[in-house]
Amino acid sequence: MNLSHIEHIGIAVKSIDEALPYYENVLGLKCYAIEEVADQKVKTAFLKIGQTKIELLESTSPDGTIASFIEKRGEGIHHIAFSVADGVQNALVELEGKGVKLIDKAPRKGAEGLNIAFLHPKSTVGVLTELCENPNETK
Amino acid sequence: MNLSHIEHIGIAVKSIDEALPYYENVLGLKCYAIEEVADQKVKTAFLKIGQTKIELLESTSPDGTIASFIEKRGEGIHHIAFSVADGVQNALVELEGKGVKLIDKAPRKGAEGLNIAFLHPKSTVGVLTELCENPNETK
Repeated sequence: MNLSHIEHIGIAVKSIDEALPYYENVLGLKCYAIEEVADQKVKTAFLKIGQTKIELLESTSPDGTIASFIEKRGEGIHHIAFSVADGVQNALVELEGKGVKLIDKAPRKGAEGLNIAFLHPKSTVGVLTELCENPNETK
Repeated sequence: MNLSHIEHIGIAVKSIDEALPYYENVLGLKCYAIEEVADQKVKTAFLKIGQTKIELLESTSPDGTIASFIEKRGEGIHHIAFSVADGVQNALVELEGKGVKLIDKAPRKGAEGLNIAFLHPKSTVGVLTELCENPNETK
């Protein structure tokens, strides 16, 4: 498994509209895309900084995972996503062989058309961890 | 203020010795430095991925901020640190002018000899945020 960089950091917010002025006007970053991912019950907003994106996550439903995260822990960092240079499917096979608990046994489509899979925080020292590949870039 | 990239992601762990096998043997990253920062009551371990470091934080005292973070929330992501290309001191002046609540009113020394300052999560939509500059690189 070859992790090349941190693809994005997912941050749970109550409202993208209320969070964006901090990221844009205070930090000086620029939101370049807003996208709804219906099956994850989230609206996402993306800002880029260096190699990494900040993904703001707003729940579109009171029973979504982001809504329940915020209810338990408040707004804040939700997950880290690594870019896997040699493919998410290969990585999942390798990780499962090493005893890592997987949330997704196979890659699925995430925001921005990426292939993604989540690892369980019980196997990752408490950090909800996502693996990503851009299907147009994977070799 | 010119944020160039995510300098590091700080992750609170109970034990660096117990967390490192996941980062090294499972994710395939390499720890290149372990350092104690006495005034923050932490031991840190650094791994690099792309432009960004992962900073594992272990409390060296039961009354340290990392120990109390873990007691409240469990192990997990503690903060994000942005690299400021045009200096932390300038950034603090600008941010205070924009009404951001500062934890550090002036830069102080952090791990790896960086000049650092923390912003209060009340002003950063829930994300404990650090600004960093490498005094040898700042223009």
